[in-house]
Amino acid sequence: MKSNGSLRDEIIALKRERILEVAADLFYAQGYENATLDAVAERLGVTKPFIYSYFKSKSELLAEICQRAIRGSLEEMNAVLATDTGPVERLRRLGEVFTLTVLRSQKHIAIFAREEKNLSPRDFKRISSLRREFDGKLNKLLQEGCDAGAFQVVDRELAALAIGGMVSWTYVWFRGGGRLGPEELAQRMSELILALVQAERTPAGGRTAAG
Amino acid sequence: MKSNGSLRDEIIALKRERILEVAADLFYAQGYENATLDAVAERLGVTKPFIYSYFKSKSELLAEICQRAIRGSLEEMNAVLATDTGPVERLRRLGEVFTLTVLRSQKHIAIFAREEKNLSPRDFKRISSLRREFDGKLNKLLQEGCDAGAFQVVDRELAALAIGGMVSWTYVWFRGGGRLGPEELAQRMSELILALVQAERTPAGGRTAAG
Repeated sequence: MKSNGSLRDEIIALKRERILEVAADLFYAQGYENATLDAVAERLGVTKPFIYSYFKSKSELLAEICQRAIRGSLEEMNAVLATDTGPVERLRRLGEVFTLTVLRSQKHIAIFAREEKNLSPRDFKRISSLRREFDGKLNKLLQEGCDAGAFQVVDRELAALAIGGMVSWTYVWFRGGGRLGPEELAQRMSELILALVQAERTPAGGRTAAG
Repeated sequence: MKSNGSLRDEIIALKRERILEVAADLFYAQGYENATLDAVAERLGVTKPFIYSYFKSKSELLAEICQRAIRGSLEEMNAVLATDTGPVERLRRLGEVFTLTVLRSQKHIAIFAREEKNLSPRDFKRISSLRREFDGKLNKLLQEGCDAGAFQVVDRELAALAIGGMVSWTYVWFRGGGRLGPEELAQRMSELILALVQAERTPAGGRTAAG
Protein backbone atom coordinates (compact mmCIF):
# COMPACT_ATOMS: atom_id res chain seq x y z
CA MET A 1 0.00 0.00 0.00
CA LYS A 2 3.02 2.22 0.25
CA SER A 3 3.09 3.01 -3.44
CA ASN A 4 -0.61 3.94 -3.35
CA GLY A 5 0.10 6.31 -0.47
CA SER A 6 2.94 7.81 -2.41
CA LEU A 7 0.80 8.32 -5.51
CA ARG A 8 -1.87 9.97 -3.38
CA ASP A 9 0.80 12.29 -1.95
CA GLU A 10 1.98 13.12 -5.44
CA ILE A 11 -1.54 14.01 -6.52
CA ILE A 12 -2.04 16.19 -3.46
CA ALA A 13 1.29 17.91 -4.16
CA LEU A 14 0.31 18.42 -7.80
CA LYS A 15 -3.03 19.97 -6.86
CA ARG A 16 -1.40 22.30 -4.33
CA GLU A 17 1.21 23.26 -6.90
CA ARG A 18 -1.38 24.12 -9.57
CA ILE A 19 -3.42 26.19 -7.12
CA LEU A 20 -0.29 28.10 -6.11
CA GLU A 21 0.68 28.63 -9.73
CA VAL A 22 -2.68 30.10 -10.71
CA ALA A 23 -2.87 32.19 -7.54
CA ALA A 24 0.62 33.59 -8.20
CA ASP A 25 -0.38 34.51 -11.77
CA LEU A 26 -3.48 36.33 -10.49
CA PHE A 27 -1.79 38.05 -7.54
CA TYR A 28 0.96 39.18 -9.91
CA ALA A 29 -1.38 40.49 -12.59
CA GLN A 30 -4.17 41.98 -10.46
CA GLY A 31 -2.58 42.58 -7.05
CA TYR A 32 -3.38 40.51 -3.96
CA GLU A 33 -6.26 42.68 -2.79
CA ASN A 34 -8.05 42.64 -6.15
CA ALA A 35 -7.56 38.94 -6.86
CA THR A 36 -10.27 36.63 -5.53
CA LEU A 37 -10.32 32.93 -4.69
CA ASP A 38 -13.37 32.72 -6.96
CA ALA A 39 -11.17 33.77 -9.86
CA VAL A 40 -8.50 31.22 -8.86
CA ALA A 41 -11.16 28.48 -8.74
CA GLU A 42 -12.63 29.55 -12.06
CA ARG A 43 -9.29 29.42 -13.86
CA LEU A 44 -8.66 25.93 -12.49
CA GLY A 45 -12.18 24.76 -13.29
CA VAL A 46 -12.77 23.80 -9.64
CA THR A 47 -14.97 25.05 -6.79
CA LYS A 48 -13.88 27.39 -4.03
CA PRO A 49 -14.40 24.66 -1.37
CA PHE A 50 -11.90 22.54 -3.34
CA ILE A 51 -9.30 25.27 -2.82
CA TYR A 52 -10.20 25.55 0.85
CA SER A 53 -9.46 21.85 1.29
CA TYR A 54 -5.82 22.64 0.40
CA PHE A 55 -5.36 26.16 1.76
CA LYS A 56 -7.12 27.68 4.74
CA SER A 57 -7.33 31.16 3.25
CA LYS A 58 -6.15 33.56 0.57
CA SER A 59 -3.62 34.77 3.14
CA GLU A 60 -2.12 31.27 3.46
CA LEU A 61 -1.72 31.18 -0.33
CA LEU A 62 0.10 34.51 -0.21
CA ALA A 63 2.43 33.25 2.53
CA GLU A 64 3.27 30.13 0.50
CA ILE A 65 4.02 32.21 -2.59
CA CYS A 66 6.12 34.73 -0.67
CA GLN A 67 8.30 32.14 1.02
CA ARG A 68 8.90 30.08 -2.10
CA ALA A 69 12.12 31.79 -3.28
CA ILE A 70 13.79 31.86 0.12
CA ARG A 71 12.76 28.29 0.95
CA GLY A 72 14.03 27.07 -2.41
CA SER A 73 17.30 28.96 -1.90
CA LEU A 74 17.73 27.44 1.54
CA GLU A 75 17.18 23.91 0.22
CA GLU A 76 19.80 24.52 -2.45
CA MET A 77 22.12 26.01 0.17
CA ASN A 78 21.77 22.93 2.40
CA ALA A 79 22.48 20.60 -0.54
CA VAL A 80 25.62 22.57 -1.43
CA LEU A 81 26.84 22.71 2.17
CA ALA A 82 26.44 18.94 2.41
CA THR A 83 28.95 18.38 -0.41
CA ASP A 84 32.50 17.53 0.44
CA THR A 85 34.33 20.14 -1.62
CA GLY A 86 36.40 23.16 -0.62
CA PRO A 87 34.95 26.60 0.13
CA VAL A 88 35.73 28.02 -3.32
CA GLU A 89 33.90 25.23 -5.13
CA ARG A 90 31.00 25.34 -2.67
CA LEU A 91 30.60 29.08 -3.00
CA ARG A 92 30.80 28.82 -6.78
CA ARG A 93 28.12 26.14 -6.81
CA LEU A 94 25.97 28.05 -4.31
CA GLY A 95 26.17 31.21 -6.43
CA GLU A 96 24.93 29.24 -9.43
CA VAL A 97 22.02 27.39 -7.81
CA PHE A 98 20.97 30.46 -5.80
CA THR A 99 20.85 32.55 -8.99
CA LEU A 100 18.88 29.87 -10.82
CA THR A 101 16.40 29.64 -7.93
CA VAL A 102 15.86 33.40 -7.96
CA LEU A 103 15.36 33.41 -11.73
CA ARG A 104 12.79 30.61 -11.44
CA SER A 105 11.03 32.57 -8.66
CA GLN A 106 10.98 36.02 -10.25
CA LYS A 107 7.20 36.30 -10.02
CA HIS A 108 7.13 35.10 -6.40
CA ILE A 109 9.79 37.60 -5.36
CA ALA A 110 7.93 40.42 -7.09
CA ILE A 111 4.75 39.43 -5.21
CA PHE A 112 6.69 39.35 -1.93
CA ALA A 113 8.15 42.81 -2.60
CA ARG A 114 4.71 44.23 -3.42
CA GLU A 115 2.48 42.45 -0.93
CA GLU A 116 4.74 42.12 2.13
CA LYS A 117 2.36 44.36 4.07
CA ASN A 118 -0.53 41.96 3.40
CA LEU A 119 1.23 39.07 5.13
CA SER A 120 0.12 38.17 8.63
CA PRO A 121 2.73 39.14 11.27
CA ARG A 122 3.30 35.42 11.95
CA ASP A 123 3.98 34.63 8.28
CA PHE A 124 6.18 37.69 7.89
CA LYS A 125 8.20 36.61 10.91
CA ARG A 126 8.62 33.09 9.55
CA ILE A 127 9.87 34.37 6.19
CA SER A 128 12.25 36.80 7.89
CA SER A 129 13.64 33.97 9.94
CA LEU A 130 14.23 31.86 6.80
CA ARG A 131 16.09 34.82 5.32
CA ARG A 132 18.22 35.15 8.44
CA GLU A 133 18.97 31.42 8.29
CA PHE A 134 20.16 31.81 4.69
CA ASP A 135 22.33 34.84 5.52
CA GLY A 136 23.75 33.06 8.58
CA LYS A 137 24.72 29.94 6.63
CA LEU A 138 26.31 32.02 3.88
CA ASN A 139 28.18 33.98 6.55
CA LYS A 140 29.45 30.69 7.99
CA LEU A 141 30.64 29.49 4.58
CA LEU A 142 32.53 32.78 4.14
CA GLN A 143 34.05 32.29 7.58
CA GLU A 144 35.23 28.79 6.65
CA GLY A 145 36.77 30.13 3.46
CA CYS A 146 38.54 32.91 5.34
CA ASP A 147 39.83 30.46 7.96
CA ALA A 148 41.17 28.25 5.19
CA GLY A 149 42.89 31.25 3.59
CA ALA A 150 40.73 30.82 0.47
CA PHE A 151 38.72 34.07 0.82
CA GLN A 152 39.63 37.56 2.00
CA VAL A 153 36.60 39.28 3.50
CA VAL A 154 36.77 42.04 6.10
CA ASP A 155 33.05 42.19 6.96
CA ARG A 156 31.52 38.75 6.35
CA GLU A 157 28.04 39.72 7.51
CA LEU A 158 27.91 42.59 5.01
CA ALA A 159 29.46 40.45 2.26
CA ALA A 160 26.72 37.83 2.77
CA LEU A 161 24.04 40.52 2.46
CA ALA A 162 25.76 42.00 -0.61
CA ILE A 163 25.84 38.57 -2.29
CA GLY A 164 22.18 38.07 -1.38
CA GLY A 165 21.42 41.48 -2.89
CA MET A 166 23.28 41.14 -6.18
CA VAL A 167 21.58 37.81 -6.84
CA SER A 168 18.11 38.71 -5.54
CA TRP A 169 18.06 41.95 -7.56
CA THR A 170 18.10 39.91 -10.80
CA TYR A 171 14.35 39.56 -10.24
CA VAL A 172 14.12 43.27 -11.12
CA TRP A 173 16.04 43.30 -14.37
CA PHE A 174 16.26 39.79 -15.82
CA ARG A 175 14.13 39.14 -18.89
CA GLY A 176 14.22 35.83 -20.71
CA GLY A 177 15.48 35.93 -24.29
CA GLY A 178 18.18 38.51 -23.49
CA ARG A 179 21.93 38.43 -23.93
CA LEU A 180 22.50 35.72 -21.30
CA GLY A 181 20.42 32.63 -20.61
CA PRO A 182 19.81 31.58 -16.98
CA GLU A 183 22.68 29.03 -16.88
CA GLU A 184 25.23 31.44 -18.32
CA LEU A 185 24.05 34.26 -16.08
CA ALA A 186 24.30 31.98 -13.05
CA GLN A 187 27.88 31.05 -13.91
CA ARG A 188 28.96 34.65 -14.44
CA MET A 189 27.22 35.74 -11.25
CA SER A 190 29.22 33.10 -9.39
CA GLU A 191 32.44 34.50 -10.84
CA LEU A 192 31.49 37.95 -9.54
CA ILE A 193 30.73 36.47 -6.11
CA LEU A 194 34.14 34.77 -6.03
CA ALA A 195 35.77 38.08 -6.99
CA LEU A 196 33.84 39.87 -4.24
CA VAL A 197 35.25 37.52 -1.57
CA GLN A 198 38.69 37.76 -3.24
CA ALA A 199 38.79 34.00 -3.66
CA GLU A 200 42.12 32.42 -4.53
CA ARG A 201 41.85 31.07 -8.04
CA THR A 202 43.33 27.73 -8.88
CA PRO A 203 43.96 27.11 -12.59
CA ALA A 204 40.96 24.76 -12.67
CA GLY A 205 38.64 27.30 -11.11
CA GLY A 206 40.20 30.37 -12.67
CA ARG A 207 37.70 31.07 -15.41
CA THR A 208 37.84 34.81 -14.74
CA ALA A 209 41.62 34.95 -14.98
CA ALA A 210 41.46 32.93 -18.17
CA GLY A 211 38.98 35.37 -19.66
CA MET B 1 14.53 91.33 -7.70
CA LYS B 2 16.59 88.24 -8.33
CA SER B 3 16.81 87.32 -4.65
CA ASN B 4 13.01 87.64 -4.36
CA GLY B 5 12.61 85.31 -7.30
CA SER B 6 15.00 82.91 -5.69
CA LEU B 7 13.17 83.05 -2.36
CA ARG B 8 9.89 82.38 -4.14
CA ASP B 9 11.50 79.39 -5.85
CA GLU B 10 12.77 78.15 -2.52
CA ILE B 11 9.30 78.38 -1.01
CA ILE B 12 7.78 76.53 -3.97
CA ALA B 13 10.45 73.86 -3.64
CA LEU B 14 9.81 73.60 0.11
CA LYS B 15 6.08 73.19 -0.39
CA ARG B 16 6.57 70.54 -3.07
CA GLU B 17 9.03 68.74 -0.84
CA ARG B 18 6.68 68.69 2.14
CA ILE B 19 3.77 67.42 0.02
CA LEU B 20 6.00 64.63 -1.35
CA GLU B 21 7.18 63.73 2.14
CA VAL B 22 3.69 63.39 3.56
CA ALA B 23 2.45 61.55 0.48
CA ALA B 24 5.38 59.09 0.73
CA ASP B 25 4.57 58.46 4.40
CA LEU B 26 0.94 57.74 3.57
CA PHE B 27 1.60 55.66 0.44
CA TYR B 28 4.12 53.65 2.47
CA ALA B 29 1.84 53.08 5.45
CA GLN B 30 -1.52 52.60 3.70
CA GLY B 31 -0.62 51.62 0.15
CA TYR B 32 -1.10 53.89 -2.87
CA GLU B 33 -4.65 52.77 -3.64
CA ASN B 34 -5.90 53.30 -0.09
CA ALA B 35 -4.18 56.64 0.51
CA THR B 36 -6.17 59.73 -0.53
CA LEU B 37 -5.13 63.26 -1.41
CA ASP B 38 -7.66 64.38 1.22
CA ALA B 39 -5.56 62.61 3.83
CA VAL B 40 -2.37 64.22 2.47
CA ALA B 41 -4.03 67.65 2.62
CA GLU B 42 -5.35 67.03 6.13
CA ARG B 43 -1.92 66.05 7.47
CA LEU B 44 -0.40 69.19 5.99
CA GLY B 45 -3.24 71.41 7.19
CA VAL B 46 -3.95 72.58 3.63
CA THR B 47 -6.76 72.15 1.10
CA LYS B 48 -6.82 69.64 -1.74
CA PRO B 49 -6.78 72.46 -4.36
CA PHE B 50 -3.50 73.63 -2.75
CA ILE B 51 -1.99 70.24 -3.54
CA TYR B 52 -3.38 70.35 -7.07
CA SER B 53 -1.57 73.62 -7.66
CA TYR B 54 1.71 71.70 -7.22
CA PHE B 55 0.87 68.25 -8.57
CA LYS B 56 -1.65 67.45 -11.29
CA SER B 57 -2.75 64.15 -9.73
CA LYS B 58 -2.06 61.45 -7.16
CA SER B 59 -0.39 59.56 -9.98
CA GLU B 60 2.08 62.43 -10.55
CA LEU B 61 2.96 62.30 -6.83
CA LEU B 62 3.61 58.57 -7.13
CA ALA B 63 5.86 59.09 -10.16
CA GLU B 64 7.88 61.75 -8.31
CA ILE B 65 8.31 59.46 -5.30
CA CYS B 66 9.26 56.44 -7.42
CA GLN B 67 11.92 58.25 -9.43
CA ARG B 68 13.53 59.92 -6.43
CA ALA B 69 16.16 57.25 -5.63
CA ILE B 70 17.29 56.73 -9.20
CA ARG B 71 17.36 60.46 -9.98
CA GLY B 72 19.36 61.14 -6.82
CA SER B 73 21.77 58.32 -7.69
CA LEU B 74 22.23 59.71 -11.20
CA GLU B 75 23.00 63.19 -9.88
CA GLU B 76 25.61 61.72 -7.54
CA MET B 77 26.98 59.64 -10.42
CA ASN B 78 27.36 62.71 -12.64
CA ALA B 79 29.13 64.61 -9.86
CA VAL B 80 31.56 61.74 -9.31
CA LEU B 81 32.22 61.29 -13.04
CA ALA B 82 33.03 65.00 -13.29
CA THR B 83 35.90 64.66 -10.80
CA ASP B 84 39.42 64.36 -12.11
CA THR B 85 40.55 61.25 -10.21
CA GLY B 86 41.40 57.75 -11.43
CA PRO B 87 38.85 54.97 -11.92
CA VAL B 88 39.56 53.31 -8.56
CA GLU B 89 38.94 56.50 -6.61
CA ARG B 90 35.89 57.39 -8.68
CA LEU B 91 34.36 53.95 -8.23
CA ARG B 92 35.10 54.05 -4.52
CA ARG B 93 33.42 57.45 -4.22
CA LEU B 94 30.50 56.36 -6.39
CA GLY B 95 29.93 53.28 -4.23
CA GLU B 96 29.76 55.48 -1.14
CA VAL B 97 27.42 58.18 -2.43
CA PHE B 98 25.20 55.66 -4.24
CA THR B 99 24.81 53.63 -1.03
CA LEU B 100 24.05 56.77 0.98
CA THR B 101 21.43 57.84 -1.59
CA VAL B 102 19.72 54.44 -1.42
CA LEU B 103 19.72 54.51 2.39
CA ARG B 104 18.16 57.98 2.35
CA SER B 105 15.55 56.76 -0.14
CA GLN B 106 14.58 53.46 1.51
CA LYS B 107 10.92 54.41 1.76
CA HIS B 108 10.79 55.65 -1.85
CA ILE B 109 12.37 52.46 -3.17
CA ALA B 110 9.93 50.34 -1.16
CA ILE B 111 7.03 52.33 -2.65
CA PHE B 112 8.48 51.86 -6.15
CA ALA B 113 8.83 48.10 -5.59
CA ARG B 114 5.25 47.83 -4.33
CA GLU B 115 3.41 50.27 -6.57
CA GLU B 116 5.27 49.93 -9.86
CA LYS B 117 2.08 48.59 -11.46
CA ASN B 118 0.21 51.78 -10.50
CA LEU B 119 2.58 54.00 -12.49
CA SER B 120 1.39 55.28 -15.85
CA PRO B 121 3.22 53.59 -18.75
CA ARG B 122 4.85 56.95 -19.57
CA ASP B 123 6.19 57.40 -16.03
CA PHE B 124 7.35 53.80 -15.85
CA LYS B 125 9.20 54.26 -19.13
CA ARG B 126 10.89 57.43 -17.89
CA ILE B 127 12.07 55.73 -14.70
CA SER B 128 13.33 52.70 -16.63
CA SER B 129 15.28 54.99 -18.90
CA LEU B 130 16.89 56.74 -15.88
CA ARG B 131 17.88 53.31 -14.59
CA ARG B 132 19.39 52.38 -17.94
CA GLU B 133 21.30 55.67 -17.96
CA PHE B 134 22.75 54.85 -14.53
CA ASP B 135 23.71 51.30 -15.56
CA GLY B 136 25.24 52.60 -18.80
CA LYS B 137 27.39 55.20 -17.05
CA LEU B 138 28.55 52.66 -14.47
CA ASN B 139 29.37 50.26 -17.31
CA LYS B 140 31.42 53.01 -18.95
CA LEU B 141 33.34 53.70 -15.74
CA LEU B 142 34.13 49.98 -15.47
CA GLN B 143 35.30 50.03 -19.09
CA GLU B 144 37.62 52.95 -18.36
CA GLY B 145 39.04 51.11 -15.37
CA CYS B 146 39.60 47.95 -17.41
CA ASP B 147 41.26 49.92 -20.21
CA ALA B 148 43.58 51.53 -17.66
CA GLY B 149 44.42 48.10 -16.22
CA ALA B 150 42.92 49.15 -12.87
CA PHE B 151 39.94 46.71 -12.91
CA GLN B 152 39.54 43.15 -14.12
CA VAL B 153 35.98 42.51 -15.22
CA VAL B 154 34.94 39.90 -17.76
CA ASP B 155 31.30 40.95 -18.15
CA ARG B 156 31.01 44.68 -17.42
CA GLU B 157 27.30 44.89 -18.14
CA LEU B 158 26.55 42.18 -15.59
CA ALA B 159 29.02 43.65 -13.08
CA ALA B 160 27.22 47.00 -13.31
CA LEU B 161 23.89 45.29 -12.63
CA ALA B 162 25.40 43.30 -9.75
CA ILE B 163 26.77 46.49 -8.16
CA GLY B 164 23.38 48.14 -8.63
CA GLY B 165 21.76 45.13 -6.96
CA MET B 166 24.02 44.79 -3.93
CA VAL B 167 23.57 48.47 -3.14
CA SER B 168 19.86 48.75 -3.99
CA TRP B 169 19.01 45.65 -1.92
CA THR B 170 20.10 47.51 1.26
CA TYR B 171 16.62 49.04 1.15
CA VAL B 172 15.33 45.58 2.12
CA TRP B 173 17.53 44.88 5.12
CA PHE B 174 19.03 48.11 6.46
CA ARG B 175 17.59 49.33 9.75
CA GLY B 176 18.93 52.42 11.50
CA GLY B 177 20.52 51.85 14.90
CA GLY B 178 22.15 48.58 13.81
CA ARG B 179 25.77 47.44 13.81
CA LEU B 180 26.84 49.87 11.07
CA GLY B 181 25.79 53.48 10.57
CA PRO B 182 25.12 54.74 7.02
CA GLU B 183 28.61 56.23 6.54
CA GLU B 184 30.42 53.11 7.68
CA LEU B 185 28.14 50.85 5.67
CA ALA B 186 28.73 53.01 2.57
CA GLN B 187 32.52 52.72 2.98
CA ARG B 188 32.44 48.97 3.41
CA MET B 189 30.06 48.55 0.50
CA SER B 190 32.57 50.46 -1.64
CA GLU B 191 35.32 48.07 -0.57
CA LEU B 192 33.16 45.14 -1.68
CA ILE B 193 32.50 46.85 -5.02
CA LEU B 194 36.25 47.37 -5.55
CA ALA B 195 36.83 43.70 -4.73
CA LEU B 196 34.11 42.67 -7.19
CA VAL B 197 35.86 44.51 -10.04
CA GLN B 198 39.23 43.16 -8.80
CA ALA B 199 40.59 46.68 -8.47
CA GLU B 200 44.30 47.07 -8.06
CA ARG B 201 44.91 48.36 -4.57
CA THR B 202 47.46 51.07 -3.97
CA PRO B 203 48.72 51.38 -0.38
CA ALA B 204 46.64 54.55 0.03
CA GLY B 205 43.43 52.92 -1.22
CA GLY B 206 44.12 49.49 0.23
CA ARG B 207 41.86 49.58 3.27
CA THR B 208 40.75 46.01 2.69
CA ALA B 209 44.27 44.65 2.52
CA ALA B 210 45.12 46.62 5.66
CA GLY B 211 42.13 45.10 7.43
